[in-house]
Amino acid sequence: MNALDNALLNANFKAYAAYGTSSDANIRYLTSFRTSDPVIYLKRYGEEGIIIVPAMEVERAAIESPCTVMSRADAGFFDILREEPDPLKATGRMIADLSGGPILVSPEFPFGLAQAIAPHQPIQVDMDTLSAMRSKKTASEIGMMRESQAAAEDALETALTMIKRAKPTGELLVTPEGRILTSEDVRYAIHATLQKHGCRGIDTIVASGKETSMVHLRGRGSLAANAPIIIDIFPQHEETGYFADMTRTVVRGEASPEILEMYAAVSDAKTLAFSLLRAGADGSALYQAVVSFFEDAGYGTEPHGFVHSLGHGVGIEVHEAPSLSTRGGPLAAGNVVTIEPGLYYPGIGGVRIEDMALVTDGGYDRITRFREVFCI
Amino acid sequence: MNALDNALLNANFKAYAAYGTSSDANIRYLTSFRTSDPVIYLKRYGEEGIIIVPAMEVERAAIESPCTVMSRADAGFFDILREEPDPLKATGRMIADLSGGPILVSPEFPFGLAQAIAPHQPIQVDMDTLSAMRSKKTASEIGMMRESQAAAEDALETALTMIKRAKPTGELLVTPEGRILTSEDVRYAIHATLQKHGCRGIDTIVASGKETSMVHLRGRGSLAANAPIIIDIFPQHEETGYFADMTRTVVRGEASPEILEMYAAVSDAKTLAFSLLRAGADGSALYQAVVSFFEDAGYGTEPHGFVHSLGHGVGIEVHEAPSLSTRGGPLAAGNVVTIEPGLYYPGIGGVRIEDMALVTDGGYDRITRFREVFCI
Repeated sequence: MNALDNALLNANFKAYAAYGTSSDANIRYLTSFRTSDPVIYLKRYGEEGIIIVPAMEVERAAIESPCTVMSRADAGFFDILREEPDPLKATGRMIADLSGGPILVSPEFPFGLAQAIAPHQPIQVDMDTLSAMRSKKTASEIGMMRESQAAAEDALETALTMIKRAKPTGELLVTPEGRILTSEDVRYAIHATLQKHGCRGIDTIVASGKETSMVHLRGRGSLAANAPIIIDIFPQHEETGYFADMTRTVVRGEASPEILEMYAAVSDAKTLAFSLLRAGADGSALYQAVVSFFEDAGYGTEPHGFVHSLGHGVGIEVHEAPSLSTRGGPLAAGNVVTIEPGLYYPGIGGVRIEDMALVTDGGYDRITRFREVFCI
Repeated sequence: MNALDNALLNANFKAYAAYGTSSDANIRYLTSFRTSDPVIYLKRYGEEGIIIVPAMEVERAAIESPCTVMSRADAGFFDILREEPDPLKATGRMIADLSGGPILVSPEFPFGLAQAIAPHQPIQVDMDTLSAMRSKKTASEIGMMRESQAAAEDALETALTMIKRAKPTGELLVTPEGRILTSEDVRYAIHATLQKHGCRGIDTIVASGKETSMVHLRGRGSLAANAPIIIDIFPQHEETGYFADMTRTVVRGEASPEILEMYAAVSDAKTLAFSLLRAGADGSALYQAVVSFFEDAGYGTEPHGFVHSLGHGVGIEVHEAPSLSTRGGPLAAGNVVTIEPGLYYPGIGGVRIEDMALVTDGGYDRITRFREVFCI
């Protein structure tokens, strides 16, 4: 964990701390331990990271985590608790005692625990080190993300097969068995396919018709014929915790002229963005290039049109650094980012296409293999 | 949200704030909004709660959240950003400006954002109000937890059916098709059943044989015959976010004398704990009663034996307040807690039985309907 050591050296601090359950992305990243009860991560300058867990978890943590494992008892928690009966305050003092000096934490570190540490050791937020570490993927992390992506693509294939089997009938899609195809049906099939790959789908979007103008609406009820269906799948692998993220917009039947034009513009915007994607390029420059492209094509950014960012990092969280938006910042080799232009107009609908790629020095390596698909 | 108003009144503070994605339990509880990007919750004394979201999410938030919805633009974020280009500092100032006075937050509030608020308004941790609110379930929340529990019970039935179909053959369980039954097979079937109920399983435990002595090991590989199989299912409902939590320990074949005795002690301990469960009872008193019972039966608490707490609150997190442990504190009507005594010995294995119940004034209403089941 050299980047943390560098941050400690630069700040002239002694230790880096994190706290949470494994639904806290920093904790899962730093410890690889899976738990519904909060654990402590502590890394002293120049040393290996330590995970501090209840005694009953020591043996399991030694199996699951690459960190040095310490029980709360060995970390002095129960001795401190005799003098300081408040568990939060005692935890703060324990972290301070173990750190042996000033402590850096990420911005997400819990305020209550920071206040419990402060009387015993200086504590300071380090804004970017951990986020930057997480944003530069190792070969092993990229391999895990390719697995999640493979699950997403298999699930998308399942979804498209279901939609293609159903026939446009008035404004609805009707299966060969005579049932009206719903968002819920397709989402269920997507999740079942993801599960076969050891992944889970969370808030998967299968929205259609006019509701697609709301970017993140998950969708419900009957799917619309001759209208956009946005399918946005972002599975998390249960074992590794790593996400993938992809979107396709399809029309079963015939698209309206507005949607046809929006689709063409979004697809071209995606091509443009990928042509600019490489290490050293600035996320905000890519975003601005796409905004200008859309403006030339007659589409704005507010209140409707291209209302979101161009993309974001993906990893142990589905949205993490870097950001391809007005915020931006230089992209680095090893970043895994989405490119996902979209256009949204109330009363008409939305179109979004999203691929995920590894940023390289010369350009990128597209992780998404799935074809672009529109009218089916 | 009267409890927050009371806390504000008592502290003489003006507003309560929270920040995070919907994987932050406080945000999900306070806003009911589902998002992978952080949002802000702000409640001024005597007013309704506000959720502050990006412009593109305003329409969806109005559908999903009972809060008053405000865009970041309307909350002044972009105006502040012109003077204060750092997004975190700008967010802090925006919250301070909107609050109109000193701000209370939960202990989990992010330290970085707290520091960004502090130059503009006093900010202080309120330890228990939100946690206590969350621990007292409304009728609607209890209904949602019953749904998750029904999913868990259906999934457990699926698991037991699979295990009963397999025959003890040496140290293994072999299906009628001649396949060795594995932890992964059973976990997969559990998750597939949960999915049919709109729930997801996360880190479901199907551990067997000697590995059951590690309390939270998920288990892998072939399931053991004539040895404990711990099945611990804690599904989260996708739509509502509410969990259930239940455990059964079963033996396919014949249990060893040690496991037989451990099972009897754990089952009796559960009965004892339920006999003491009611509003006003102290969680630590229940825990201590079970510790004493186990000690009388020849079982200790460390380093092996009854190594964990007696139970915990369940809700929008699988582990939340109250705690039935040395920590304890008085139980209140409306708490939903687990009662889950267990015994664990390396080289022998573990036994845990867990039911979930609603605490009432006179006693409890058991939410778990599933029978106790042991040798099958």
